[in-house]
Amino acid sequence: MTQLLAAVDLGSNSFRLVIGRIVESGDAVQIYPVDRLKETVRLAAGLRADKTLDAPTAAFALEVLRRFGERLRSFHPERVRAVATNTFRVARNVAEFLPQAEEALGFPIEVIAGREEARLIFAGVAHSLPPSVDKRLVVDIGGGSTEFIIGRRFEPELMESLYMGCVSFSRAHFPAGIVDAHTMKQAEMAARREIEVIAKQYRKAGWQEAYGSSGTAKALGAILTESGFSDQGITRRGLDKLKDRLIKAGTVERAQLAGIKPDRISVLPGGLAIMSAIFDELGIESMRTADGALRVGVLYDLAGRDSAFDKRDDTVRQFMSRYKTDKAQAARVRQTALELFRQLVPSPAPDQGELTRILGWAADLHEIGLSIAHNTYHKHTAYILEHADMPGFSRQDQSLLALLALSHQGKLAKLEELVAHEEQWIAILCLRLAAILYRRREDVGPLPIAVSLKGHSLIVKAAAAWMRAHPLTDFTLRAEESEWRKVGFTFELLEL
Amino acid sequence: MTQLLAAVDLGSNSFRLVIGRIVESGDAVQIYPVDRLKETVRLAAGLRADKTLDAPTAAFALEVLRRFGERLRSFHPERVRAVATNTFRVARNVAEFLPQAEEALGFPIEVIAGREEARLIFAGVAHSLPPSVDKRLVVDIGGGSTEFIIGRRFEPELMESLYMGCVSFSRAHFPAGIVDAHTMKQAEMAARREIEVIAKQYRKAGWQEAYGSSGTAKALGAILTESGFSDQGITRRGLDKLKDRLIKAGTVERAQLAGIKPDRISVLPGGLAIMSAIFDELGIESMRTADGALRVGVLYDLAGRDSAFDKRDDTVRQFMSRYKTDKAQAARVRQTALELFRQLVPSPAPDQGELTRILGWAADLHEIGLSIAHNTYHKHTAYILEHADMPGFSRQDQSLLALLALSHQGKLAKLEELVAHEEQWIAILCLRLAAILYRRREDVGPLPIAVSLKGHSLIVKAAAAWMRAHPLTDFTLRAEESEWRKVGFTFELLEL
Repeated sequence: MTQLLAAVDLGSNSFRLVIGRIVESGDAVQIYPVDRLKETVRLAAGLRADKTLDAPTAAFALEVLRRFGERLRSFHPERVRAVATNTFRVARNVAEFLPQAEEALGFPIEVIAGREEARLIFAGVAHSLPPSVDKRLVVDIGGGSTEFIIGRRFEPELMESLYMGCVSFSRAHFPAGIVDAHTMKQAEMAARREIEVIAKQYRKAGWQEAYGSSGTAKALGAILTESGFSDQGITRRGLDKLKDRLIKAGTVERAQLAGIKPDRISVLPGGLAIMSAIFDELGIESMRTADGALRVGVLYDLAGRDSAFDKRDDTVRQFMSRYKTDKAQAARVRQTALELFRQLVPSPAPDQGELTRILGWAADLHEIGLSIAHNTYHKHTAYILEHADMPGFSRQDQSLLALLALSHQGKLAKLEELVAHEEQWIAILCLRLAAILYRRREDVGPLPIAVSLKGHSLIVKAAAAWMRAHPLTDFTLRAEESEWRKVGFTFELLEL
Repeated sequence: MTQLLAAVDLGSNSFRLVIGRIVESGDAVQIYPVDRLKETVRLAAGLRADKTLDAPTAAFALEVLRRFGERLRSFHPERVRAVATNTFRVARNVAEFLPQAEEALGFPIEVIAGREEARLIFAGVAHSLPPSVDKRLVVDIGGGSTEFIIGRRFEPELMESLYMGCVSFSRAHFPAGIVDAHTMKQAEMAARREIEVIAKQYRKAGWQEAYGSSGTAKALGAILTESGFSDQGITRRGLDKLKDRLIKAGTVERAQLAGIKPDRISVLPGGLAIMSAIFDELGIESMRTADGALRVGVLYDLAGRDSAFDKRDDTVRQFMSRYKTDKAQAARVRQTALELFRQLVPSPAPDQGELTRILGWAADLHEIGLSIAHNTYHKHTAYILEHADMPGFSRQDQSLLALLALSHQGKLAKLEELVAHEEQWIAILCLRLAAILYRRREDVGPLPIAVSLKGHSLIVKAAAAWMRAHPLTDFTLRAEESEWRKVGFTFELLEL
């Protein structure tokens, strides 16, 4: 039983659940799907003009999530990962909808950034294809966004995510399902305009094999081959023939295509326009379809987190070097922040284990804002952590990192509404105290303070001799008292 | 007459005007002051608790500026530079006060960042001291901020600006002018807490000579030597003796110090606390006083702008390399943006010459936000340009750079309130068009478009053959029409 993992992919077109069994052979891990569920929710089509999700779509999405939740009821939280993509990224009312969705599913849902989606898609495709030393281009036309990845084996080299998908494009350009030459041309141009920005870099990097990994790619592959428009996979000639057929027929229904599934009818025109634009802009002649995609990548990533390797460690290391962090200072602050956290939370619950990891990374990265300016650098750190592409991190991970960085110095009062859980205050306290102890950027020897918390009463015990020798740290610690009072804590400094 | 330059320094304690005569000898430039004005405005003391400037202080400041303005009436705008420092940086109502101040003075006023202030101070001091190969530490305790610079000859190596000054500290810690041992200790601790953060780095860099360049340093130097507390300059022993004397007397007046000027009485306790803290934290034993300071640095910088060298070019080059900009792309966009600007503004007025320079730098830097993330990178570029330390650039320069970067792609409608002058729309247009032409990151040969503007009617003429060969650029240019309509312009695309 413990060898089962589950991935939930809340896409803009469909919601999917896959349960996989881990099989280790030597030092390689293989995951075999043992169960799959798919529901076409068309979430992107539920976005109103003001970018809020409409009620019927939200209700249907919650119903599907409750069904998925039932299937997952016996799973431990650490063995399930649910990710949500573009519609969750852009929906204005996601802050209201997300907690409902998490309750329905019974597990936390991570809203992931476009590049993170790209990384996971490539991992999924790479694990599903036979091994090869060739460079591969993977294109994933989703419901709300399209990902482009070039990589070799399991290593992505280039990753981009563009805001265009089969649901959103079909809705914007073919709202009544009518396909004519002009609207098809306009839709293709709009897609090419997005792709144009990355085309040069991708053409320059080059590839030997091109794969399409999404529902759109599979649908196009099936239609082209079964209708006799191509011999194998997706070809430029085949796409042109399909376009001609649709324009002549005027709608997808009337075109009576062989190989099309009913749930693809309404999103085919947008998907076709995007695929044609990709062929044009990247100079592709033919493309194979690939299984795998996001949910499989999520499974492999989850298997990785289970083991010693967490992609996020990699990302943090890269950021520390990109922003030329003072590594000795980061290490001091990290070690002390985590030691204080252990004092306050001696036996962390499962989700506090995750908070511990985030606290460590926040300590690693709390000074990266110095790359922009010294003054109020904690705000610049928070800005970067909130907005940067951080492979492996979800949006919520990044927001929490940003919160910790923002609160590691300066005023606390304004942060009250950003803090979601009581234990986040504990993490903030630990990072602040660690930063105060090392303001001078020098080692302080054995930790001169100890902390305890009862309800909202914080007690910091400090070695009296050490405090006398460090009057400045004493002065700064005493100033914490009024900061914490403003957010509802008493903060007592006792000398021992 | 054309050899005269003027610098206006709107400090948090005093406003100063200096007029200098440029004397060139060989390839070196010397500036000799020919006139000086100084008024103690105590601007920092006019800040209310809510950080707005109170009416009496504002009124007096405007009166002083009108007097300065009278003295400068015959000067060409390019030969005057007025800079404003910390109180302008922090005052909440600066957006209302600044235009009034500029009208009173008759010249634009640049609010400069702390590090820019530090750079200019070092330039001023370095030009005022005899040449030396020694490393110098320069400390400038102003009314609202204190700058720390280590450098050799004319090259600063380390620069920092901390939010503490003699006016703000005297007001916060000695509001009634009463000096006792406890309040003096508290004030020193508060100052040391600020300095602590930079102390290690400064001690590590080291120096052979320490200079104090502000009014506070000169006042302390005069008091210590004339009262017999030190033989020469400012010494640690001397500072301690002065502190003892003040604490015994209880106020500065009662201490009856030799060498003190009346306008220094109210700001001496805060300045003394800061200077003592600096001696402690940086381990200084003695310090000489130096002339020069900010206003002299401004004069030399102005003389530099007059010649081929503009510090800002240096900064832009550094930023391009720090953020790993695609230089070929930046060069294409720069060249085309400036060519379009020349078409629209064939004979620029003096202040439009400055706008041209800013447009060129905005083209150089418009992609630096890619270092954070690809999605909405124009917003990240704007964030960096708004917040980074950019030597040579004023706050207003940086805001304008940020505005141009922000508007070079995406929606225009939200920017309307950020655009201060009509001609800024022209610069925005030129940068947008250039960015559109090179979206593909490839050369396009001879410029295929020409622009003209009458009132609010924009006309873009494009070569018909070129447009047919570039349908995507055609498509994108046509999409501009609705963007410009939203901000009150008609945008017509004509094929020729």
